[in-house]
Amino acid sequence: MGAAARAMSNFGFRDLRLVTPYEVSYEEATSAVGPSKNLLQKARVFASLGEAIADCSVVVGTASVGNRDLQLDMRRLETGAAAIKRAMAKPGQGKVAVLFGSERFGLTNDEMAHCHWLMRIPTREAHESMNLGQSVAICLYELVRAPGAARAEDAEGQRETLAAALPPGLQLAQGSELERVTQALTEVLEESGYVKKSVQTSTNLKIRRMIRRMKLNATDAQNLLGMLKKVLWKLNS
Amino acid sequence: MGAAARAMSNFGFRDLRLVTPYEVSYEEATSAVGPSKNLLQKARVFASLGEAIADCSVVVGTASVGNRDLQLDMRRLETGAAAIKRAMAKPGQGKVAVLFGSERFGLTNDEMAHCHWLMRIPTREAHESMNLGQSVAICLYELVRAPGAARAEDAEGQRETLAAALPPGLQLAQGSELERVTQALTEVLEESGYVKKSVQTSTNLKIRRMIRRMKLNATDAQNLLGMLKKVLWKLNS
Repeated sequence: MGAAARAMSNFGFRDLRLVTPYEVSYEEATSAVGPSKNLLQKARVFASLGEAIADCSVVVGTASVGNRDLQLDMRRLETGAAAIKRAMAKPGQGKVAVLFGSERFGLTNDEMAHCHWLMRIPTREAHESMNLGQSVAICLYELVRAPGAARAEDAEGQRETLAAALPPGLQLAQGSELERVTQALTEVLEESGYVKKSVQTSTNLKIRRMIRRMKLNATDAQNLLGMLKKVLWKLNS
Repeated sequence: MGAAARAMSNFGFRDLRLVTPYEVSYEEATSAVGPSKNLLQKARVFASLGEAIADCSVVVGTASVGNRDLQLDMRRLETGAAAIKRAMAKPGQGKVAVLFGSERFGLTNDEMAHCHWLMRIPTREAHESMNLGQSVAICLYELVRAPGAARAEDAEGQRETLAAALPPGLQLAQGSELERVTQALTEVLEESGYVKKSVQTSTNLKIRRMIRRMKLNATDAQNLLGMLKKVLWKLNS
């Protein structure tokens, strides 16, 4: 955790979010001194991944070839970072989250279901598994690497102003909105008997992935939620 | 030391040379298990930097702007790694050494005097100093990083999209499938009372547009159709 924060500070990233961190490591990291102390103390802790990415419109998981998920695109870091930079350069684009799993196990299937796509560091196949702090450092390095990175950072203020002025129909829906749509659709499918409660978890995963693949804009997400709520109300009445 | 070895193993570098390593760390690193164990056990220990680089024809020191030595060129990692790769591609070129100093102090002036030039990771000026294992990982990543990989992969993606034999999960749904989804959703919304029959035409248009914006793949379109039919059946029963 400390190493991840240090790399963030080295490369100018500020918004560290932790999902149910291991308490001992968390205490240790936040009590350490050094230039990333401030960043760690401002880090927010969340009880679930869904809450942590609620305001993010693109969620990118980091993984290795070993846990390739056929339902999700997997890109090499060089391509993935370029895609993230392109996404962030679009006016009106929301936040982009880059997810790292635990050192030992990486991201779980549940966590990957929140991702729009996956990104992998091009390590040797015979030894893919990287140290977490090093993976974070490499991904962030690749993100600031471009010669244009400095200019993009200068333009950040302008982008934020533009974002506020853009109509919701041109903004991608945020994680929390997609999650509400996911929940509503799940309830509708349960009520209609399409989903059996006993297989709920795996279906929930499938629905969450499908909703992410739709790349809904904010207006469509809201409309879809309204439709689903009306249908649910009718099914229950 | 262990982290440096692990990054070397991740990226396929084999020749680790240690100059008067701190004994405790050395014992600890060489006794650890894992995929880089072999690399650490083959690491050679030297009593002086001069001996360690005796068979190298280019020696590159890693440093930060803070210890810029006016007598040596300092390049950003992006440029420096490219220069190393060009040097290694020359026929008859000897070995290239990349030197890392101690975690706390970096390379000493004496050590820098062995270098042909210096290379620095482009960290923020306000927080330049990196964790040693992370610096090693980033430098090695930049050395194996394939500048053409991103373009090649993007081109591959396009080719795949064009290919006809793709699984349905990767093919965009066809117009007729989208139309069936549109009709089913419209019926569900009418049955549930979300849409009034009198304003049907304009709503139908809105729904049709929304479904198109989702860019559903063939599998998702089919699944969505199944869900809607089940919901409709339940609403009617």
